[in-house]
Amino acid sequence: MEKFIINQALDMHLHLRDDDMLKLVAHMTSNGFCGALIMPNILPPITTKKDLLSYKKRIKEACKDDKFEPFMTVFFQVDYSYEFLEDIKDEIIAVKLYPFGVTTNSQTGVSSMDVEVLRPTLESMSKLGIPLCVHGETKGFVMDREKEFLPIYESLAINFPKLKIIMEHISSKESISLLEKYDNLYATITVHHLMLTLDDVAGGMLNPHIFCKPIVKRPEDREALLKLALNAHPKVMFGSDSAPHQKNTKECHHGAAGIFSSPILLQVLTQLFEKNGKLDNLNAFISLNAQKIYDLKPLGKEVVLVKKDFIVPKEYSYRNEKVVPLFEGQTLSWSIDKIIQEKTK
Amino acid sequence: MEKFIINQALDMHLHLRDDDMLKLVAHMTSNGFCGALIMPNILPPITTKKDLLSYKKRIKEACKDDKFEPFMTVFFQVDYSYEFLEDIKDEIIAVKLYPFGVTTNSQTGVSSMDVEVLRPTLESMSKLGIPLCVHGETKGFVMDREKEFLPIYESLAINFPKLKIIMEHISSKESISLLEKYDNLYATITVHHLMLTLDDVAGGMLNPHIFCKPIVKRPEDREALLKLALNAHPKVMFGSDSAPHQKNTKECHHGAAGIFSSPILLQVLTQLFEKNGKLDNLNAFISLNAQKIYDLKPLGKEVVLVKKDFIVPKEYSYRNEKVVPLFEGQTLSWSIDKIIQEKTK
Repeated sequence: MEKFIINQALDMHLHLRDDDMLKLVAHMTSNGFCGALIMPNILPPITTKKDLLSYKKRIKEACKDDKFEPFMTVFFQVDYSYEFLEDIKDEIIAVKLYPFGVTTNSQTGVSSMDVEVLRPTLESMSKLGIPLCVHGETKGFVMDREKEFLPIYESLAINFPKLKIIMEHISSKESISLLEKYDNLYATITVHHLMLTLDDVAGGMLNPHIFCKPIVKRPEDREALLKLALNAHPKVMFGSDSAPHQKNTKECHHGAAGIFSSPILLQVLTQLFEKNGKLDNLNAFISLNAQKIYDLKPLGKEVVLVKKDFIVPKEYSYRNEKVVPLFEGQTLSWSIDKIIQEKTK
Repeated sequence: MEKFIINQALDMHLHLRDDDMLKLVAHMTSNGFCGALIMPNILPPITTKKDLLSYKKRIKEACKDDKFEPFMTVFFQVDYSYEFLEDIKDEIIAVKLYPFGVTTNSQTGVSSMDVEVLRPTLESMSKLGIPLCVHGETKGFVMDREKEFLPIYESLAINFPKLKIIMEHISSKESISLLEKYDNLYATITVHHLMLTLDDVAGGMLNPHIFCKPIVKRPEDREALLKLALNAHPKVMFGSDSAPHQKNTKECHHGAAGIFSSPILLQVLTQLFEKNGKLDNLNAFISLNAQKIYDLKPLGKEVVLVKKDFIVPKEYSYRNEKVVPLFEGQTLSWSIDKIIQEKTK
């Protein structure tokens, strides 16, 4: 049977939530990935060393896998001191910046993206070599929010030339030329922005389970991002932005934003890269690029995939938590056969 | 107290459904409107004289108001004979054409928009002076479907110069120049396309109750349509496209398309036209233009609105049917004070 091996998979943008939801979803990532960048927008958001270490501990317990490394982040604050950032430097991989109100749990995000307002924290980060992850959207028209944010990315890139800035979950074709223009800009791309458009959300019946921020866009946006990923552009990393929400907070009057994709990522990416004749680039997209950009030395974890049908479950549940995954009920052409862990050194 | 009178209001695009839903919603239109163009896409769709008369009877019974005229339509078929159309001519106001699969209950719509395929029915209609109402959307990307349909409208307008063609629920700014280019093109506009954009559906939380087809579009589309309506452009009529769906078929995994607006239309339109200093044009937009385009002589029905808060109910129900109206829970600045019916002649 045809097989393919993914080695040292890294998910560089992941929401694991907390409590029962954490227990439900954490092992779905830790199973096949050797590490993931954990977003800090739980409630309350992670802004102290104590909360950071405590959340990391809860994640480790939920994963039950000491070969999985949760790369932690803190929630950007304009008043982080140099001393605080220096103190937590070895416990985090990046600081995540949310503009106020642009997505789930961003109510404590920054209210101004003015460079001078952000400067103290960003200068400290730059000196300490801590990368900045950004949810880059304005409050404009939903299809234009990322495009409208590009001048802000540009201003950050120019003002902080030594700061590594990661444009998270890019979704618009216009983001690509900016990414290529500045040495210190990088990007993550999700599976859903590579595979879906607004048609999938609202072209037929309305599907709340693939409603997310930034919203999936036009076919030409998807095509441009797909080309970037398939060629494993060295400034681009895989980041799923898997963001589980309770089923009943999606299928309701005011549906929450976020796509839950963690249990199907490796299968879907293998299928997508194979279909486009680019399997040789998948390990760069899903691991090597991130290792270089973030200077990581992850443990080995080989996932052996075989070309065998995998029917995506309709939902996953644990106690009262119930989540519907991306592509629920659909048949994927690749399955996970086995996972080979490297011995702990 | 400030007041405004709407006389002989006409809703030139309305879905009344059937059974309990018909009983729930019909009087919400017949109450303030003196007539409405009734869409034929119930299940099975109206394609025979018997079904037409029977549906009209059910509507009249549900309205319990003999001062309300349901202007009936039949569902376009490529094989309608001249004799059939001649026979039903006095019972209908128009024939409604749905391309296959573009919206609710359009599974029996036409599979080809080729003029030669449509020609026999359209030539009969043209000879008999029966107008054609069209749901003008392709199967393309959801934001482009109406724009992509414009060449089809153009081809129909050129090939059947004596056929009155109504571009239903126009939603894109590009439709306006075509409307103005051909004498035999007319259009209806909904309240929701005058007031909402995609931001209202998917810009914050996902709101299934304002998901509809054609989808509400960009701010510049809304602005262009609003200008047309506020000036009561003589080729434009009000048509609500009020399309009730059971609450639980909206708040679910695969939400149905359609906005239920009938109970709030007169209040909202008065507020909108007043806010924009165009109250003097409202009676043309909501009645006189349609009277001219369709050559109607409706009975009088004066609705006296007063500037007094009206809180839109959160939902309406009858037996097992439950529907959520547009702007549920919001406060409108105009209320219906009284309705003065003209004596039956």
